[in-house]
Amino acid sequence: MKILVLHGPNLNLLGEREKEYYGSKTLEEINTALHHCAREKKAELMIYQSNHEGELIDIIHKMRSVVSGILINPAGFSHTSVALHDALKIFKGPIVEVHLSQPLKREGFRSPLLTAQACSGLILGFGWRSYVFGLEALISEIGH
Amino acid sequence: MKILVLHGPNLNLLGEREKEYYGSKTLEEINTALHHCAREKKAELMIYQSNHEGELIDIIHKMRSVVSGILINPAGFSHTSVALHDALKIFKGPIVEVHLSQPLKREGFRSPLLTAQACSGLILGFGWRSYVFGLEALISEIGH
Amino acid sequence: MKILVLHGPNLNLLGEREKEYYGSKTLEEINTALHHCAREKKAELMIYQSNHEGELIDIIHKMRSVVSGILINPAGFSHTSVALHDALKIFKGPIVEVHLSQPLKREGFRSPLLTAQACSGLILGFGWRSYVFGLEALISEIGH
Amino acid sequence: MKILVLHGPNLNLLGEREKEYYGSKTLEEINTALHHCAREKKAELMIYQSNHEGELIDIIHKMRSVVSGILINPAGFSHTSVALHDALKIFKGPIVEVHLSQPLKREGFRSPLLTAQACSGLILGFGWRSYVFGLEALISEIGH
Amino acid sequence: MKILVLHGPNLNLLGEREKEYYGSKTLEEINTALHHCAREKKAELMIYQSNHEGELIDIIHKMRSVVSGILINPAGFSHTSVALHDALKIFKGPIVEVHLSQPLKREGFRSPLLTAQACSGLILGFGWRSYVFGLEALISEIGH
Amino acid sequence: MKILVLHGPNLNLLGEREKEYYGSKTLEEINTALHHCAREKKAELMIYQSNHEGELIDIIHKMRSVVSGILINPAGFSHTSVALHDALKIFKGPIVEVHLSQPLKREGFRSPLLTAQACSGLILGFGWRSYVFGLEALISEIGH
Amino acid sequence: MKILVLHGPNLNLLGEREKEYYGSKTLEEINTALHHCAREKKAELMIYQSNHEGELIDIIHKMRSVVSGILINPAGFSHTSVALHDALKIFKGPIVEVHLSQPLKREGFRSPLLTAQACSGLILGFGWRSYVFGLEALISEIGH
Amino acid sequence: MKILVLHGPNLNLLGEREKEYYGSKTLEEINTALHHCAREKKAELMIYQSNHEGELIDIIHKMRSVVSGILINPAGFSHTSVALHDALKIFKGPIVEVHLSQPLKREGFRSPLLTAQACSGLILGFGWRSYVFGLEALISEIGH
Amino acid sequence: MKILVLHGPNLNLLGEREKEYYGSKTLEEINTALHHCAREKKAELMIYQSNHEGELIDIIHKMRSVVSGILINPAGFSHTSVALHDALKIFKGPIVEVHLSQPLKREGFRSPLLTAQACSGLILGFGWRSYVFGLEALISEIGH
Amino acid sequence: MKILVLHGPNLNLLGEREKEYYGSKTLEEINTALHHCAREKKAELMIYQSNHEGELIDIIHKMRSVVSGILINPAGFSHTSVALHDALKIFKGPIVEVHLSQPLKREGFRSPLLTAQACSGLILGFGWRSYVFGLEALISEIGH
Amino acid sequence: MKILVLHGPNLNLLGEREKEYYGSKTLEEINTALHHCAREKKAELMIYQSNHEGELIDIIHKMRSVVSGILINPAGFSHTSVALHDALKIFKGPIVEVHLSQPLKREGFRSPLLTAQACSGLILGFGWRSYVFGLEALISEIGH
Amino acid sequence: MKILVLHGPNLNLLGEREKEYYGSKTLEEINTALHHCAREKKAELMIYQSNHEGELIDIIHKMRSVVSGILINPAGFSHTSVALHDALKIFKGPIVEVHLSQPLKREGFRSPLLTAQACSGLILGFGWRSYVFGLEALISEIGH
Repeated sequence: MKILVLHGPNLNLLGEREKEYYGSKTLEEINTALHHCAREKKAELMIYQSNHEGELIDIIHKMRSVVSGILINPAGFSHTSVALHDALKIFKGPIVEVHLSQPLKREGFRSPLLTAQACSGLILGFGWRSYVFGLEALISEIGH
Repeated sequence: MKILVLHGPNLNLLGEREKEYYGSKTLEEINTALHHCAREKKAELMIYQSNHEGELIDIIHKMRSVVSGILINPAGFSHTSVALHDALKIFKGPIVEVHLSQPLKREGFRSPLLTAQACSGLILGFGWRSYVFGLEALISEIGH
Repeated sequence: MKILVLHGPNLNLLGEREKEYYGSKTLEEINTALHHCAREKKAELMIYQSNHEGELIDIIHKMRSVVSGILINPAGFSHTSVALHDALKIFKGPIVEVHLSQPLKREGFRSPLLTAQACSGLILGFGWRSYVFGLEALISEIGH
Repeated sequence: MKILVLHGPNLNLLGEREKEYYGSKTLEEINTALHHCAREKKAELMIYQSNHEGELIDIIHKMRSVVSGILINPAGFSHTSVALHDALKIFKGPIVEVHLSQPLKREGFRSPLLTAQACSGLILGFGWRSYVFGLEALISEIGH
Repeated sequence: MKILVLHGPNLNLLGEREKEYYGSKTLEEINTALHHCAREKKAELMIYQSNHEGELIDIIHKMRSVVSGILINPAGFSHTSVALHDALKIFKGPIVEVHLSQPLKREGFRSPLLTAQACSGLILGFGWRSYVFGLEALISEIGH
Repeated sequence: MKILVLHGPNLNLLGEREKEYYGSKTLEEINTALHHCAREKKAELMIYQSNHEGELIDIIHKMRSVVSGILINPAGFSHTSVALHDALKIFKGPIVEVHLSQPLKREGFRSPLLTAQACSGLILGFGWRSYVFGLEALISEIGH
Repeated sequence: MKILVLHGPNLNLLGEREKEYYGSKTLEEINTALHHCAREKKAELMIYQSNHEGELIDIIHKMRSVVSGILINPAGFSHTSVALHDALKIFKGPIVEVHLSQPLKREGFRSPLLTAQACSGLILGFGWRSYVFGLEALISEIGH
Repeated sequence: MKILVLHGPNLNLLGEREKEYYGSKTLEEINTALHHCAREKKAELMIYQSNHEGELIDIIHKMRSVVSGILINPAGFSHTSVALHDALKIFKGPIVEVHLSQPLKREGFRSPLLTAQACSGLILGFGWRSYVFGLEALISEIGH
Repeated sequence: MKILVLHGPNLNLLGEREKEYYGSKTLEEINTALHHCAREKKAELMIYQSNHEGELIDIIHKMRSVVSGILINPAGFSHTSVALHDALKIFKGPIVEVHLSQPLKREGFRSPLLTAQACSGLILGFGWRSYVFGLEALISEIGH
Repeated sequence: MKILVLHGPNLNLLGEREKEYYGSKTLEEINTALHHCAREKKAELMIYQSNHEGELIDIIHKMRSVVSGILINPAGFSHTSVALHDALKIFKGPIVEVHLSQPLKREGFRSPLLTAQACSGLILGFGWRSYVFGLEALISEIGH
Repeated sequence: MKILVLHGPNLNLLGEREKEYYGSKTLEEINTALHHCAREKKAELMIYQSNHEGELIDIIHKMRSVVSGILINPAGFSHTSVALHDALKIFKGPIVEVHLSQPLKREGFRSPLLTAQACSGLILGFGWRSYVFGLEALISEIGH
Repeated sequence: MKILVLHGPNLNLLGEREKEYYGSKTLEEINTALHHCAREKKAELMIYQSNHEGELIDIIHKMRSVVSGILINPAGFSHTSVALHDALKIFKGPIVEVHLSQPLKREGFRSPLLTAQACSGLILGFGWRSYVFGLEALISEIGH
């Protein structure tokens, strides 16, 4: 079982960026935790980070028939990208969107959740553990 | 470790109610799954269901110093109850709100997520597994 | 043929309450008129009034497999209760919502008609006769 | 007792038009049912259908001192016509507005109910029986 | 100097219709007053009333090269008719829109003033004298 | 018969200010025209201009029992001043609000017409002649 | 193959009306171009223009089983007419709505495109050529 | 003189709950202060707290002919309960609504003040002293 | 203890102005009542009324280090004045805003309560007694 | 005559993606149809597809002086990209925007049509034939 | 070269007022800095501060033909004053509006920037240096 | 002192693009002016232009610890990019956003200023001089 993990814009700087919202773990540390969790569940992860909306779309296209599920944190694109939403809609398997913070508690421009409308499930507000919970949920969805 | 599990209005009829949204498991079956999961993690669950907003508030008040975390599916009250939101705000530990369906994909009146603004984390759209993921997330938050 | 008649909050004080909107008949008098009308149509009524949203939901749940139709005046809950809407959605037979006054001609907060979205038909503005028309319409729907 | 029955735009094609909303009865069949019901109640009906807002207004003006009540399905004009609303306001007797479908469950542009603000009562969502219930309600209002 | 005077829907019933808003003069009496005023100013009036939006448009089209100015009370069409607005836009001379009542003080659906956006001037709220003031203003605009 | 004429902010610079909206007459020339018109109708004018909302309110208060009517162009205060609205509401006689331009055709912030809700009539868009028409209308209202 | 061509309100005055939006061709010239284009494609056109919403609806009703497609420019009715929308919905074949100008670039009241929701395709902004492109598109849809 | 004092949801936990908004006094301490103040003014208090909207309505109904005035802090129900608003409307005497915090300075969902529309007066933002000021004001209103 | 009492625009005409909202007491009578109440509490009042927003701001500035609290009825400025709001924000002590009527029950333009966001407490709807209650509350806040 | 054809995000997967909206033709097949159509009209096409907003802008910049017209389907960027809108605005020749589906009939987030405000014409809802009609329209515009 | 510098309401108390937004410099210190900067650029400043909207308008009127440019911080009036906007519109030379804080990051009522629509340029958020940057920009605009 | 200068989408075509808004200077000329200004202040500029949102984010990330300040014109991305906003938020030093035109005077879609919420200061509307003023302001902020 292969799973695509997508990190959206600015997540490469986790650990440094507004820690009260995003915590102090780096992206590398989160990826390590995800690999660890995947290994336990016999899943293989293909992880990408990009600050480019177009690249995220390209990767979804390329991977769409290779992977069984997508775990995505679209970060800032969650609230604005119809194009990313449309790309996710093409994928046939389950998709889980995760956020480290709880966007509903923050600035008003974070309340439209556009890409979430193309996802099977949504996990918000658990810090880096949102990813781990999301991966477990996704694997469970696929196996189910 | 004790955990309060709260099921909001109409959830007592799961298994019978709009299955395309809520699936075919009954509440009893979900509770069994939750107890099973809790036992593994050495946690004890105290589960209540009520169609009364006031009763849910009363239970939160009574249990607030007994339990270490709350797992809640406020169902229809999610979108309208300031009073329930205020009750959750009083609780000092982590709270995870779960929904079986993805309210953002449904009627417009389900898009304000009021009680969620008093919760640490939010898990939406995984059917009955939202509860299981939510419980695991909650226990992890408490242990953390 | 059994029919559930539900009176929402404050309707127990009909006859005393803002008469320019609600008329001078008491709830008892309306119930008498309803029983009279039901007897003619060979229907049996089970009538409840409650000021508690949760109780109305409980009664719908309990009666859902006993009755063939529901006649409901949700009063103030019409405009705010997602939970009551969801309870009505579970019922398989026809539901008729009635109002004594015409909410569209009154305060702005009475214009969202939430529970009506779970009902087959809607009768507004005929004073106490809204109930009688509603009962006749409901019986006709069931027989039909 | 004379009663004006007005059918608004596109109702001449009932039976052919989007049957999931409007049912399969033709307008002629509905009129027959209305005449039948009126005869029982000793009322005489004057029935008109028009796709012209102006014609509906003209008829209301002409008939305003001849009839004791108006039964109207303004169809598409319900949501947009201030002029028809104003014409109805001139009539001194009771007016019942009926709709075959439940506009509150359909497209957003059907939710403003303008003409209803000039009516005594409103009956929505019972298919062709909305007319019959409406006529009975109207006659009862007049007699009352 | 010829002037077109257009009375929109329901104005044929002035004197009978909601007197607190529209006063007790009939349309004929208003027309007499207008003819009287026009004669003094050496103008000739061509007066039409219609409840049909299309007829009002047809008359504007037909008269557009015959008259030097238009005095119009679009009544209910003021708030809804893009088509009438567009017809007025075609006319090259001055147009004065008048209303007997002050729409800004009434129901919310009377506050968009659409046709007024195609008019040179607007006179609101003087009862039947709005027409007389409007005619004088129009003649002054033409002469000017 | 005494009449209060009030010119709001920036009107002292008429003739110089955005001529496409306000024309090339100065305020003095307008006042001369108003005095001329008043003399013909045997009325006496008391004319004030102020750029101070408070001064306009003070003048209305002081003059309220001296004059029989008020002619006011509140200019920019039309759209924002609740206080001026409230001052006009205290005056018992007729009030006519005039504007040189048609605010409904301009920037969005000019579309709320607040002070107009305290006036008997409203005359918009005839350039400096709005004042003359307004004065004639006001005198006619008073005499009436 | 027969095709219904419907021109909405004010289009009879094309060539004279706001040329910066609508160009200088008359309606007759456009009709000639359409007939020419139709002949090439072996189609027969039945062309009507009306300023009356009701007449446009009547024609659609009458022609609905005679023609294979409808080409319509609803002009001002596009933005306001639920009744015309409903009439178009009854027609079973393809419908193409055309506009000479681009309503999205003009006044705010032209941005709701109501009738378009009942059409298969929409062609905006090519001046008189919108009609020709629309006719070609419609014929292609029918043949397809 | 008897007075009904109603405490809405979550107020039973005052002293523990978000102290920056609600202060550190417990409800019991507030009630003592109220009794003390009442005794001075020769009034008798009947105090209830409930987290159930329906119970608050029931109490108002039951007490409506026993007491001369109502002092209510509807807490979270202030912003959402049409039913409670309607219950208060039935009471004939003066009603004073109080809040410990200033809802206008907090989350957006606290700005609609629904129940206040059924009250004679409103006192906001003085912490526990809002109750005392409210009681004094209420007694003064009754005596007045 | 010195207290600044500020009366906003049009309050100088209390007793004459829309009595159904503002009662029949004059401002002088209210001031007498306030002085009486202050004397009892050993406080000294400095009372000003102005129809000028700027003057109210000037007074607040001048008095800001002389007085211990401010009692203000900003009248029409409550809903529109950011400048007055900002002036109040500069004052370090408690501020109580009072209104004679209940703005939430009146015209829509009275519902934004801007200056209230700079005040400690708010007392609405008790007629002239709002001032007395406000003064007592303010003194209590200062002493507290 | 050279023409730039731009396909926006996710269009590379046509034929696979939500066929009820986008049909079953692949992008290659559409391009073939476009080349075929262009050859007939003696035009040369330069076709690009990109999922990157920035790349689409770069191409427009590079091609802006080489081509005589632009045919663009901005897909998801239509509704969100001010930057793409601005790039199109720089191009001096005609631009035709096409969509396969009718965005006005779909999710709410597809109703703002931003890029269309920089285009001469708009063709919506004809499936892959939107492109062909658009190309023909564009060539006709250029030749015109 | 003469330049008018206008300080709006409450700026006379800079140095004392909400320092986290406005810094600790007094207005006098800012004026000194401005004079210093002006001398270097050979410009002469005429500086006024007022808490009165009307006075600011009066000064603009009086100075409009004396000065070559205006530097204005309208403070609270920025968001509400149509009258001040209109006064600035009359001035023919360049106008620079400055703010010490960034209103877009603060309360919602500070986001409409009305007066800015009459200004050539806008400088926000640099504390007291906004003034200096604004003056330099203005002088550069004039010289340009 | 090193400073990052970022030019957003379409700015590479300055001098050619809608000159009434953006002026006739090319980007190269602006950069020359900026280098000239920087040299005087002993600062070194690192200038980039990109039409790719992702590239701008990448550059900010890469440069974030190299430079002391950022001068950015996000052009079209100002109004839509949460991702760019988030990237700017990560940078610890001062950021100045500049615009050549005044977006508040243009199309409605330019009025949300998203990225500005992550900036220290904002300079709008001075054409190419906005950049120079912005650079001077930024250097002054850094030195300060």
